[in-house]
Amino acid sequence: MSIPRDTGLTLDPRYDAAGLITAVVTDRTSGEVLMIAHMNAEALAATIATSEAHFWSRSRNRLWKKGESSGNVLSVSDIRIDCDQDAVWIIADPAGPACHTGARSCFFRRIEGGALGPVE
Amino acid sequence: MSIPRDTGLTLDPRYDAAGLITAVVTDRTSGEVLMIAHMNAEALAATIATSEAHFWSRSRNRLWKKGESSGNVLSVSDIRIDCDQDAVWIIADPAGPACHTGARSCFFRRIEGGALGPVE
Repeated sequence: MSIPRDTGLTLDPRYDAAGLITAVVTDRTSGEVLMIAHMNAEALAATIATSEAHFWSRSRNRLWKKGESSGNVLSVSDIRIDCDQDAVWIIADPAGPACHTGARSCFFRRIEGGALGPVE
Repeated sequence: MSIPRDTGLTLDPRYDAAGLITAVVTDRTSGEVLMIAHMNAEALAATIATSEAHFWSRSRNRLWKKGESSGNVLSVSDIRIDCDQDAVWIIADPAGPACHTGARSCFFRRIEGGALGPVE
């Protein structure tokens, strides 16, 4: 069964009950997954308008431009959307570490058995 | 401020109110983002135990092994977890198209202005 949202060319994000979609950011050069966050309609519109990644901070309950305090903005090269339009894939050039810990990517640990180990 | 969940080596997933974390899957060879889905504790444990990606289907409200009906399983090469442990990055070799539409990736459209366009 084909529905327009899944295969058509109309932008029609499927926001959840909190008004959010999931956003995954990868590094344009390395391909590495840098972070996962959430966007509301305002954050998506700001990202499209400025080509800098904006998210909705669930902890601070406000629009958040990535790098607004750290300077580590994400310059957006491409924005893709998935089949059911509840997630976007942002391909970006990061100005610095994406993670608040100072790591290049938030995914700096791997699951090894029942524990974690460093990726590098 | 450093907290153990953010920087330590203890696996301690931060499940949301519905008992879920976000999972992003990339292709081990191409690096492409294939899909985004959700895992509960059972799905994460099954993925670790079998090295085949399992998720929690929110629409069907049950554990779901990717490819259980299509055969397009995801053979897991690496599982990484993010700083606050509410998302995992699965690096996998897909046996076939990841998307229910038959596309290799669920992210087969890009946002162009206010509409969508095909990636390829």
